[in-house]
Amino acid sequence: MKAYASIPRDDKEKILKCEKEKYEALKARNIKLDISRGKPSKEQLALSEELLKIDISNCADDGGIDIRNYGGLPGIPAARALFGELLGVPASQVQIGGSSSITLMHDTIMRNFLFGALNGDIPWKDQKVKFICPVPGYDRHFTICEAFGIEMINVDMLSTGPDMDKVEELVKDPAVKGIWCVPQYDNPGGVVYSSTTVERLAKMQTAARDFRIFWDNAYCVHHFDVDNPMCVDNIYELCKDAGNEDRVYMFTSTSKITFPNGGVCCLAASPANIAWQREKLNSQVISFDKVNQMRHVRFLANKAQVLEHMRRHATIMKPKFDFVVNYLNEKLGGTDCAVWSMPHGGYFISFFAHPGCAKRIVELCRQAGLILTDAGATYPYHNDPADSNIRIAPSIPTLTELSQAMELFVTVVKLVTIEKLLDEE
Amino acid sequence: MKAYASIPRDDKEKILKCEKEKYEALKARNIKLDISRGKPSKEQLALSEELLKIDISNCADDGGIDIRNYGGLPGIPAARALFGELLGVPASQVQIGGSSSITLMHDTIMRNFLFGALNGDIPWKDQKVKFICPVPGYDRHFTICEAFGIEMINVDMLSTGPDMDKVEELVKDPAVKGIWCVPQYDNPGGVVYSSTTVERLAKMQTAARDFRIFWDNAYCVHHFDVDNPMCVDNIYELCKDAGNEDRVYMFTSTSKITFPNGGVCCLAASPANIAWQREKLNSQVISFDKVNQMRHVRFLANKAQVLEHMRRHATIMKPKFDFVVNYLNEKLGGTDCAVWSMPHGGYFISFFAHPGCAKRIVELCRQAGLILTDAGATYPYHNDPADSNIRIAPSIPTLTELSQAMELFVTVVKLVTIEKLLDEE
Repeated sequence: MKAYASIPRDDKEKILKCEKEKYEALKARNIKLDISRGKPSKEQLALSEELLKIDISNCADDGGIDIRNYGGLPGIPAARALFGELLGVPASQVQIGGSSSITLMHDTIMRNFLFGALNGDIPWKDQKVKFICPVPGYDRHFTICEAFGIEMINVDMLSTGPDMDKVEELVKDPAVKGIWCVPQYDNPGGVVYSSTTVERLAKMQTAARDFRIFWDNAYCVHHFDVDNPMCVDNIYELCKDAGNEDRVYMFTSTSKITFPNGGVCCLAASPANIAWQREKLNSQVISFDKVNQMRHVRFLANKAQVLEHMRRHATIMKPKFDFVVNYLNEKLGGTDCAVWSMPHGGYFISFFAHPGCAKRIVELCRQAGLILTDAGATYPYHNDPADSNIRIAPSIPTLTELSQAMELFVTVVKLVTIEKLLDEE
Repeated sequence: MKAYASIPRDDKEKILKCEKEKYEALKARNIKLDISRGKPSKEQLALSEELLKIDISNCADDGGIDIRNYGGLPGIPAARALFGELLGVPASQVQIGGSSSITLMHDTIMRNFLFGALNGDIPWKDQKVKFICPVPGYDRHFTICEAFGIEMINVDMLSTGPDMDKVEELVKDPAVKGIWCVPQYDNPGGVVYSSTTVERLAKMQTAARDFRIFWDNAYCVHHFDVDNPMCVDNIYELCKDAGNEDRVYMFTSTSKITFPNGGVCCLAASPANIAWQREKLNSQVISFDKVNQMRHVRFLANKAQVLEHMRRHATIMKPKFDFVVNYLNEKLGGTDCAVWSMPHGGYFISFFAHPGCAKRIVELCRQAGLILTDAGATYPYHNDPADSNIRIAPSIPTLTELSQAMELFVTVVKLVTIEKLLDEE
């Protein structure tokens, strides 16, 4: 296909007219579709139906802890072992939380903010605090920073992870206290951080002694090809080797393994960080829901069984991602009007439209019945400086619905891009 | 029985010798008992065994919300209705939380601290903040205040609730931003606030516009006599009538109905407070565990069914409380060496020893194998100015164990009191 920029003005106008007609026709179909959020489909939720009926009345105890009573703040031993295996850390370095890892992340920042981080001088609330935000990224990370008034600094995501030259420069500022990372199948790009990136993150010199990597490994087992997974290196081990053991907080959850917000989450970190968290946690909680921990341990057992479960998710997810990527390749490949990611796992496809087009694409899709994530949502302060990035979440619709959605989406992309190119001429 | 103070010195010395011998004999029995924490016994936990095996696979939706997926931050409609009925507020004014109401309380203070309360001028972190703490009270409330550096002011609990003359005086100070209340079967005294107390709390003039009553109604259905319950008045309605609708946050949970920290908790408040909470919650959580909400709704259904369930708890609890109270009446009644509460519900008996004796009583019991709540724990900063209050939690031991525990306890009380009286002569 020909690059749009090189098409003569007259031909562009013809294409625009044609795409506009197509758009009006599609609009008349009154579709109602939503590819805005990374939610599992009902078909995926059904994979964990056993959790809605599992009988755990014969396992009220674990390691001497009665799962039905107060106590066991660190979590039941079997749950700590399971998450330790998933994240590659000893069970003793795992703190189990409630049903949402975003809460653990928020609360970890809250504790650093109120009480000061381990190794920090003064609470973050009493100083200027900045966070590095690889972009495009996860909107809920940015919402947390906004809530606490933490200044966010954009750093571009490359195919290897965040632009480490930039990151290494920024951490020379003692006000820079953290970086958000979704290191495996990142949101929304699907990038898996390279070994070099992880090593540089672990080894870099930071001016702030209480600099923290928020390692949100939400998609640690969410492979499309379970037999040939892409796995990020163990940053905790690398931090430890580099003498920066307390630098990283690792998070994950079963939200997209079993049930979103009906699962179990955890934090893993150095022994000193875990001890610090537990001491602070004591004013906020007596213990987390150990009954749900036990249900999950019974259902998921160990990493091998989790991966078998993720294979069933992949059977549902991969065809949807393949369809979207193939459709984009076929319809927009070679037009030079956009680029998009081709992830090997996770929940999103990241689409970069011609600069200045994202908002209008999302708006025209919305008018025709297709809800996309708001343009800008993948950037701090909802501000995508290039107005280019659109996050596509193909998990919820059926293949038939995805086909309708993509037909509309591609039509709108062509329409808006040509319009813009004509404007720019 | 004779008042100890009036016994002649020689006789006191005889009693002391005799109690010391008894103590040594009891110590030699090597008992190992714990009446320190308000935890349900295994027999009580078994009442909710159905929750460990209930099959809810046929009720994945409630009010259009898929309990297995993201969404539904306020909670599922059926859970909001159940808690609304328990607390006497419309379901729309109920925010369901996770498995711990202490977390909701902590986080509510955290939000007021970081962002400023609704109707407040500046965040609590940027001003001096004081809380009124009726004493003796619940140690975890005090721990939260300590974590946030909130100054705590003791106010005596009377048989009608907090000393309202004192409270009304204190709230003239604009730095006084809140009061902790366990209004029904309070911890540890078992007091139910009188109608006058509740009305005065609702109506009083407070200097701080963002003054808040933290109404921890943890024991709202925890009657020993379900057919003749003692119920506290509806403070929200009274606040509303007095034009102070935003003054009260009400909390409760199923922790001592089903499973501690494996249940469901909630916050109820004015529409404006609930809207404010929800907006702030958005940075901390996507939604709470709706699967567990559904389990609880299926198991508990409505207030009538909850009360039937509490009747079964009472069958187990009442004999234990009766035993302790009767034992104290029989062995210490008329000695004037102590007073104790005779609660009609809840989890605790509050025991006031002769001033200056509590720490030594707890210590001597500990040395003989009986763990009591630390003396001082029922006061802010762990400081009981009179060194008098001891919290007794009789729920965990069997009646046989309680009998051993009380024999030791009363022996130690007598020993320490006589020792002290001799000292004071």
